[in-house]
Amino acid sequence: MSKSAGCCQKCVEYLFYYETPKTLVIPNIGVGCVFRFTQLLVVLYVVGYVCVVQKAYQETDTVISSVTTKVKGFAFTNTSDMDPRFWDVADYVIPPQGDRSFFVLTNMVVTPKQSQSRCPEFPSQSTTCVDDCDCIEGHSDPRGSGIQTGLCVNYSSTVQTCEVLSWCPLEIDTMLPEHALLATAENFTVLIKNSVTYPKFNFHGRNILPHINSSYLKRCEFNRATDPDCPIFRLKHIVSEAGEDFQDMAVKGGILGIIIDWSCDLDWWAGKCYPKYSFRRLDNKNPVNNVAPGYNFRFAKYYKTADGEETRTLIKAYGIRFDVIVFGTAGKFGIVPTIVNLGAALSFLSLVSIHVQSCNMEKHTHTHTHTHFSGKIMTSRI
Amino acid sequence: MSKSAGCCQKCVEYLFYYETPKTLVIPNIGVGCVFRFTQLLVVLYVVGYVCVVQKAYQETDTVISSVTTKVKGFAFTNTSDMDPRFWDVADYVIPPQGDRSFFVLTNMVVTPKQSQSRCPEFPSQSTTCVDDCDCIEGHSDPRGSGIQTGLCVNYSSTVQTCEVLSWCPLEIDTMLPEHALLATAENFTVLIKNSVTYPKFNFHGRNILPHINSSYLKRCEFNRATDPDCPIFRLKHIVSEAGEDFQDMAVKGGILGIIIDWSCDLDWWAGKCYPKYSFRRLDNKNPVNNVAPGYNFRFAKYYKTADGEETRTLIKAYGIRFDVIVFGTAGKFGIVPTIVNLGAALSFLSLVSIHVQSCNMEKHTHTHTHTHFSGKIMTSRI
Amino acid sequence: MSKSAGCCQKCVEYLFYYETPKTLVIPNIGVGCVFRFTQLLVVLYVVGYVCVVQKAYQETDTVISSVTTKVKGFAFTNTSDMDPRFWDVADYVIPPQGDRSFFVLTNMVVTPKQSQSRCPEFPSQSTTCVDDCDCIEGHSDPRGSGIQTGLCVNYSSTVQTCEVLSWCPLEIDTMLPEHALLATAENFTVLIKNSVTYPKFNFHGRNILPHINSSYLKRCEFNRATDPDCPIFRLKHIVSEAGEDFQDMAVKGGILGIIIDWSCDLDWWAGKCYPKYSFRRLDNKNPVNNVAPGYNFRFAKYYKTADGEETRTLIKAYGIRFDVIVFGTAGKFGIVPTIVNLGAALSFLSLVSIHVQSCNMEKHTHTHTHTHFSGKIMTSRI
Repeated sequence: MSKSAGCCQKCVEYLFYYETPKTLVIPNIGVGCVFRFTQLLVVLYVVGYVCVVQKAYQETDTVISSVTTKVKGFAFTNTSDMDPRFWDVADYVIPPQGDRSFFVLTNMVVTPKQSQSRCPEFPSQSTTCVDDCDCIEGHSDPRGSGIQTGLCVNYSSTVQTCEVLSWCPLEIDTMLPEHALLATAENFTVLIKNSVTYPKFNFHGRNILPHINSSYLKRCEFNRATDPDCPIFRLKHIVSEAGEDFQDMAVKGGILGIIIDWSCDLDWWAGKCYPKYSFRRLDNKNPVNNVAPGYNFRFAKYYKTADGEETRTLIKAYGIRFDVIVFGTAGKFGIVPTIVNLGAALSFLSLVSIHVQSCNMEKHTHTHTHTHFSGKIMTSRI
Repeated sequence: MSKSAGCCQKCVEYLFYYETPKTLVIPNIGVGCVFRFTQLLVVLYVVGYVCVVQKAYQETDTVISSVTTKVKGFAFTNTSDMDPRFWDVADYVIPPQGDRSFFVLTNMVVTPKQSQSRCPEFPSQSTTCVDDCDCIEGHSDPRGSGIQTGLCVNYSSTVQTCEVLSWCPLEIDTMLPEHALLATAENFTVLIKNSVTYPKFNFHGRNILPHINSSYLKRCEFNRATDPDCPIFRLKHIVSEAGEDFQDMAVKGGILGIIIDWSCDLDWWAGKCYPKYSFRRLDNKNPVNNVAPGYNFRFAKYYKTADGEETRTLIKAYGIRFDVIVFGTAGKFGIVPTIVNLGAALSFLSLVSIHVQSCNMEKHTHTHTHTHFSGKIMTSRI
Repeated sequence: MSKSAGCCQKCVEYLFYYETPKTLVIPNIGVGCVFRFTQLLVVLYVVGYVCVVQKAYQETDTVISSVTTKVKGFAFTNTSDMDPRFWDVADYVIPPQGDRSFFVLTNMVVTPKQSQSRCPEFPSQSTTCVDDCDCIEGHSDPRGSGIQTGLCVNYSSTVQTCEVLSWCPLEIDTMLPEHALLATAENFTVLIKNSVTYPKFNFHGRNILPHINSSYLKRCEFNRATDPDCPIFRLKHIVSEAGEDFQDMAVKGGILGIIIDWSCDLDWWAGKCYPKYSFRRLDNKNPVNNVAPGYNFRFAKYYKTADGEETRTLIKAYGIRFDVIVFGTAGKFGIVPTIVNLGAALSFLSLVSIHVQSCNMEKHTHTHTHTHFSGKIMTSRI
């Protein structure tokens, strides 16, 4: 019984007796300074870099956003190719819904009154012909404009080409106007409404800030220096902030990113969480390795003639696509990242002592002797 | 030679002799309890908070998703302004493709038979005129409706305004119907098909869950209480779940987020990974600082008359844009985060001992004396 | 005064005297080997797994991307239902803008010359009638096709159904062609231009790689083995890489993900950051629990007849929606994650020594005796 009692006591002792490493104090101010200085460095790293610069004590969340855009402005074109024409939003913004990506038409090749019929191909090495034998019925060249009918017909008084079944007359897209047709599009404005959410922190924000009133919104225009909070942007201003020239870009089209950065530190009062706008051209302007430079696409308006035949107006639209890109990471104090970073830094504090100790080891014999000679200098605590 | 041998032996000793800190056991149950209790707190933090609550041992990945939507329903309108008209999906859903963002038309201002021509401006301070001198040819006011022709013409029998070149007749968008035209849109339903992927974990999921069969899908309707897994939503229900009234919202339009949360713990059987639906209005309803409240956009249908002249029907469409927003983070056990979190926690365990030790230090002299008097009580282990 | 001086000196001593734990070297090669081996394991984990495999020393950022797509190709259809017709991009790509999600029409049910009028419902259990009493004026069945007028009219010579107000004639969508109408769509090609940004690292990339020249781009076609960098994809190839058959998929439609993975290690020269393409069908093909399998939507082209009446051609479009999904995480050496991971690993190194010590503890008495008997074997350093 005494044995079991002894065992029990041992257990209690093992569990509840406090155990601490014996340490040795070396009264050498030089070594002590190095030691404390290294500790200071670690502490500075933790406080200065990890906490202040990197905010590593924060949990993070990425933004969820919703964007609406509304373009305003009108233009008037009067060129030799087309009738004088007035353009409003319903004409030049595609698609019309005002999504996060909208396209403003600035230049175009219009091919009106196309219908399903037969016409001669444009002359090229593979389409010119002498007689019907050169044209294969049903053949379709991927670089051609339609399905060959097998006939060889006059393209002009001097050239004969294979006839194709296609939407005729064919589009002549080499005759793109040198100056953008809707050059005045540079004065259009766009209102961007953006609301964001950080679901983890239950934070909701808008790019129309609380301190802005309606009368200001009716007349303001974004300017990085004077009106950095105005959500109304002049297209010319956007393009020039991206380092491009609107008139240049308008001829062949391009893609322009309106980048809204919602990176926020939510530890402070939420009112400090502002959007930051930046602008960048997203397509490549003039690189060597570029296919289909600029930005264009084809769409058609379909009509029916009185006798029921379908015709269409094919439009090869060149213009600027504006992509509103919202990104951001919000940080807020979180216990787990704090613990992890502090813990890791503590490891380094203990590493410091280990490291200095190993240096000390090399002076082993010397110190040892020292202990023997002057017990006062080295005091083993406890 | 004996010297080199001695050096070699020292190296071996240095490498393979095990080195351990001398520790001291203090047989004080009070201090021991505090020590163990602090250790317990650290362990509880690690096990309870880091592992169970925060799941810090997991690697995470964000969701990639694909959404299709399909609206069903039809409406009938019979107002004094317009002919009686039947509306189906192809009429009121814009764009028709059923993307993650779809717009349901609920109200509108229709301006039919517009053509490129000349008409008097609406009377306002800047557009009323007495004679042609008040109107400048080619001038276009950003708040006006077109390009001034330089003539001053009769707007009504009493008012003269500048004539403009524009799509005439001009749109009168102040006459928005007070009650939504397509009020019955609240009974439309939308089927949302959503498939998600977590590429890092090679997980694929769908919002049509495996245990759901086709016959259920044909008749079910989402209800948080009774049918939480049904992917078919009644528009009215969505809007009311977001805390809004459909008929109110339908008049001036708005944006409604259908938020699908795919946050999952993939450590358990994958079947537990379910989508959670929530609904939130994304635009601001009635704030002080609001420009263009609600949601509307203009689009046009283009026609050609028998004599080839282009006319259009301009529609200022008010309605609700539904944005399906899919987000989520999946977590799965990962060795690196586990190690990092355990390691950091271990640092704190060692911090505990350091801390208690420094407390102990203050009792230095006392304990020291103690050792001298009763060698039995304090036993230095090895 | 001497007291205060003594206190001051104590402070200095406390601050600048270096303090190191007493350690004990156990000259047992067996224990030493186990000790060093365990340390080696920890070091191997840190160097091998954390650094090389998991790259845990890196900060990460997620990709921001912009996508343009351009489909090329034309088709010719000649079926009994429709007139022979030539199809080009403006006809079969919806929407036309070339966004990150584009739809290629492959099959359709066309209902031409619909107008707002009255026609008999399709016969079904709820729509067949004997006389007008069976039909309720103004009633609209969600599964029906319009608003009942209250009349019972002849659907055919044998069947009477309720008359509805709707777009008439009604669409008969059960007569979907068994073979895709635009079967030749499999030979269309799509050029995908994708530019990405990692804002944290100020990295910009394009999927048209720097070493590719324009002449190559004009003739190349993506092939995982021979042309893995070409941004031009044949639709048939995309579908077959996703493990599907184009002709099968074209009949009822579907959704196909073109997944571009920009995961990069930016520590190395940026040229190594290449996009990796993969393809996956995103909708469910033939599951048991599927509503509305495939992918289709309805849209209409509106016309006006000479007498001003609006007619439309309703098209139920079946086809393949291609979603370009860009994802990726870039990593670059960061001081915070490095410190955190190293720190955590260091904790484990110290854990090793604690662990071995506790093993040693069990041999307590034995070792203790040992010390007494042979002071030489156990040398306490310092």
